[in-house]
Amino acid sequence: MSLAGLLGLTDPAGGAALQTRLLPHRPEHAFAAGATTTNGDGFGVGWYGIGATPGVFRAVGPAWSDRNLRELAGHVASPLFLAHIRASTGTAVQQTNCHPFRHGRWLWVHNGMIRGFPQLKRELVLAVDPSLYAAIEGSADSEVMFFLALTFGLEDDPPAAVEQMVGFVEATARSHGITDPLQMTIGTSDGETVWAFRYSSEGRSRSLFYSTKLHTLRQLYPDNPVLHDLAEETRLVVSEPLGDLAGAWNEVPESSYGVVHHGHDELHPFRPRSMPAAVG
Amino acid sequence: MSLAGLLGLTDPAGGAALQTRLLPHRPEHAFAAGATTTNGDGFGVGWYGIGATPGVFRAVGPAWSDRNLRELAGHVASPLFLAHIRASTGTAVQQTNCHPFRHGRWLWVHNGMIRGFPQLKRELVLAVDPSLYAAIEGSADSEVMFFLALTFGLEDDPPAAVEQMVGFVEATARSHGITDPLQMTIGTSDGETVWAFRYSSEGRSRSLFYSTKLHTLRQLYPDNPVLHDLAEETRLVVSEPLGDLAGAWNEVPESSYGVVHHGHDELHPFRPRSMPAAVG
Amino acid sequence: MSLAGLLGLTDPAGGAALQTRLLPHRPEHAFAAGATTTNGDGFGVGWYGIGATPGVFRAVGPAWSDRNLRELAGHVASPLFLAHIRASTGTAVQQTNCHPFRHGRWLWVHNGMIRGFPQLKRELVLAVDPSLYAAIEGSADSEVMFFLALTFGLEDDPPAAVEQMVGFVEATARSHGITDPLQMTIGTSDGETVWAFRYSSEGRSRSLFYSTKLHTLRQLYPDNPVLHDLAEETRLVVSEPLGDLAGAWNEVPESSYGVVHHGHDELHPFRPRSMPAAVG
Amino acid sequence: MSLAGLLGLTDPAGGAALQTRLLPHRPEHAFAAGATTTNGDGFGVGWYGIGATPGVFRAVGPAWSDRNLRELAGHVASPLFLAHIRASTGTAVQQTNCHPFRHGRWLWVHNGMIRGFPQLKRELVLAVDPSLYAAIEGSADSEVMFFLALTFGLEDDPPAAVEQMVGFVEATARSHGITDPLQMTIGTSDGETVWAFRYSSEGRSRSLFYSTKLHTLRQLYPDNPVLHDLAEETRLVVSEPLGDLAGAWNEVPESSYGVVHHGHDELHPFRPRSMPAAVG
Repeated sequence: MSLAGLLGLTDPAGGAALQTRLLPHRPEHAFAAGATTTNGDGFGVGWYGIGATPGVFRAVGPAWSDRNLRELAGHVASPLFLAHIRASTGTAVQQTNCHPFRHGRWLWVHNGMIRGFPQLKRELVLAVDPSLYAAIEGSADSEVMFFLALTFGLEDDPPAAVEQMVGFVEATARSHGITDPLQMTIGTSDGETVWAFRYSSEGRSRSLFYSTKLHTLRQLYPDNPVLHDLAEETRLVVSEPLGDLAGAWNEVPESSYGVVHHGHDELHPFRPRSMPAAVG
Repeated sequence: MSLAGLLGLTDPAGGAALQTRLLPHRPEHAFAAGATTTNGDGFGVGWYGIGATPGVFRAVGPAWSDRNLRELAGHVASPLFLAHIRASTGTAVQQTNCHPFRHGRWLWVHNGMIRGFPQLKRELVLAVDPSLYAAIEGSADSEVMFFLALTFGLEDDPPAAVEQMVGFVEATARSHGITDPLQMTIGTSDGETVWAFRYSSEGRSRSLFYSTKLHTLRQLYPDNPVLHDLAEETRLVVSEPLGDLAGAWNEVPESSYGVVHHGHDELHPFRPRSMPAAVG
Repeated sequence: MSLAGLLGLTDPAGGAALQTRLLPHRPEHAFAAGATTTNGDGFGVGWYGIGATPGVFRAVGPAWSDRNLRELAGHVASPLFLAHIRASTGTAVQQTNCHPFRHGRWLWVHNGMIRGFPQLKRELVLAVDPSLYAAIEGSADSEVMFFLALTFGLEDDPPAAVEQMVGFVEATARSHGITDPLQMTIGTSDGETVWAFRYSSEGRSRSLFYSTKLHTLRQLYPDNPVLHDLAEETRLVVSEPLGDLAGAWNEVPESSYGVVHHGHDELHPFRPRSMPAAVG
Repeated sequence: MSLAGLLGLTDPAGGAALQTRLLPHRPEHAFAAGATTTNGDGFGVGWYGIGATPGVFRAVGPAWSDRNLRELAGHVASPLFLAHIRASTGTAVQQTNCHPFRHGRWLWVHNGMIRGFPQLKRELVLAVDPSLYAAIEGSADSEVMFFLALTFGLEDDPPAAVEQMVGFVEATARSHGITDPLQMTIGTSDGETVWAFRYSSEGRSRSLFYSTKLHTLRQLYPDNPVLHDLAEETRLVVSEPLGDLAGAWNEVPESSYGVVHHGHDELHPFRPRSMPAAVG
């Protein structure tokens, strides 16, 4: 997929309004997450290509006016990328708070927040594996969620690790009297597979959509040339539908996660795992 | 007036949503201009205080997340300031394209655009007084309008200079077959007086409002403590009404300009002056 | 003192090359700290004026090309300011890592580093008072030192608190087998008094200078007009001497701290207080 | 060549201190230009790869702390790139003043300045082809030189166009009583060939070096593994020698230009072409 797809970020009020143009000949997956209001507090894109780890480009201004993003979008190709546009829920607008976050080959984007984060932050951060602690660079809740998931085994079993992370955050919030602390859609990848989670403590999660199989779309739209240029296994996961092709987008159900992988995709229920709260 | 007034820039979709808190004891004037959609492409504020020329603070990110703006707003006082939040109509997002523009003691903010500017730019810039030419630092239409107005005598007779500038831009556009080239509200000041213009070639100009005299507002709202803290001659000119105090805002009529000055304010019709087009 | 003094930041290789121009008629104190090589990784200035807390202006580019800094320097006045130019020792170049750090009325600038900070960071941060923890915004060693000093009572007894902070950092480093962990000159103020510390674990600290009393300088240079324009109690503390006026600068001795206050200045020995290491 | 070569930009005082690590298997050319003092006023890199035009990444901070540059350097590959680190000679530090400048497939980097540029700028800009005028985005002398060279036929005959540009700038300066106006090393490319110019009006030009043929270096250093990994036709052109490999760098003579192309390289004398001055 060419990052040219990001070129369409011209509508600041449009959430993750990525007008993605897909390029042919490779299995391709992507995840893009944005909040529902103006997302002008920085952005980022990660992609797998040259090098042992994914590349990450992040900046603090709005994506819609960033010239370097347009340059990258037109001149970098990758079979898998994750993009994010940020609306700060309070923490500083700085590069180290922009998504995707990276650890080794893993990328992480999050749309949502931890309510009461200033009260919970110390206990949550203390639960991060001490060997990972120094790698936390920013101050955002999303990064702490990533490092908690890494602590709970993200690299071995992503769904289990995210379920433990959520369980732990909810238990810690409960011990502070904070109800419904978590609102999240999450995308994470190791470069081969994309896991996409939709969950919130209150059961009314931000939206998450995945694209219909290309084979089906081509039958629906036999004359659409774009669809015939795309690679067979192309799959997009987005926070809001892009474009207006009826039948192209399917909602990830409440409290679920999807797995996008070469040759097979899956959809499963997501259940937070019961965890003891942090000891403050 | 304390720049604390700018602290309220938290609603990116709200145009020039300045929630101005006025401070007492001095005659105070202000002009704030913004476009009607998301204004996240930089901002600026100019103020008169220490020094022979006004201070100008400009930055390229959105005003709503700029910490230095909050600091200045809380720690700089001035009897007269001009503020602007920018939505680029195509030119680069850079400090030298942010308003206010400054020349000597003069500040200039503009809300609108010159249509067909890329085609007209060379001829317009050539008409700028050669002695002023090197002081043009940015690439925006608004700055060229300022330097044309300076060329036509802004420092001596602001209304006449702006009327000539508009006449010249319209004549030049006409010679290129561009109709209705100008859309503008403009605020300019020498530190003593604020001139505020509302005009567009098509006669459907962006909005411009001025605040009701404080004496009248106090009679309307005898129990409102904020109004009683304000200086007697406080006057605001804004692109969109702030707050929801009925009776507080009055629209500047189509094709008009206002003059805000110590002791007297004026409202006059605005008529572009017939000018020969630039010779290409 | 006018911040115009900062206008001279044009020599990026010159450490804290502030060519300070002092303005008359008020007791004035200032502290400026920089590292010895190129300091182009952000800068900041804090000043006491309008408002209950000091103003802070910080940016991530080099001070020498920052236009807003020049504007502030020419348009903001204060009897007391602290300025800093940063050379990152590894942590991110971002506003929240720029000095001065602020807490209430307190400002803090630091020149130096904690060696082995990535290994020590978790234990040091854990020792910060939990009620202060959420106010840590950046990732730099200097900010952690500030919050440790606050934890140890900076607001009540600054020298004792800084001596405890140093003792604690050294004990924690020792428990990790890190020798000579601290290199520091520090300036801190509550708006009335400036405390300036010079210390390093190895006893070879970065330089720190204070200006000679104006009364003495005027006797040395009876014809220097600048000296006669200055306020009687003007005092500067800088990491490197400014200008070339012989007799103007006096080195703060190794392992010492100075106190600059209205009417009296002091110089004392600095001795780290024995503290137990953090329990990892 | 991988942009990983740019990863070494850690010494801000080291001019164009690119510690280039070359990667194997393709003919590779590069040009890097920097001024002689601290180059912290922005940087840029252009490369030829995906897409009809080269990619350009430019930013306003110092290259040495730019994380996105490190990411690109590690994750973008190209057979030909141009890099530049900037020390402003007065014009604004903004993206549109950063090199490389681009027009179609052409890139342009310049090290040096036009003396008296503020006085000459209007006349020089007027001589730019009106159809190109609107594409000038910045305010720097280097960009005006590029657009003058384009006006004089850069795309057809680069050496002739640059010689005319220089002749024109010198004639215009002469008419203003400015002697020795030009100081320049220039690199320009269409993606196939690199032209590198060294010239100054006063005959004491900034340095320019090209790397020795790999075949020769391998005979000199038969045991150096890096040299054996490189592509046969690898060639670097730099403003200052990189590394300390004796015999690796050759100075481009005063008033000369080199041509680096697949299969053959050339070195020629550079002679400004007599041009009439601009009519002011």
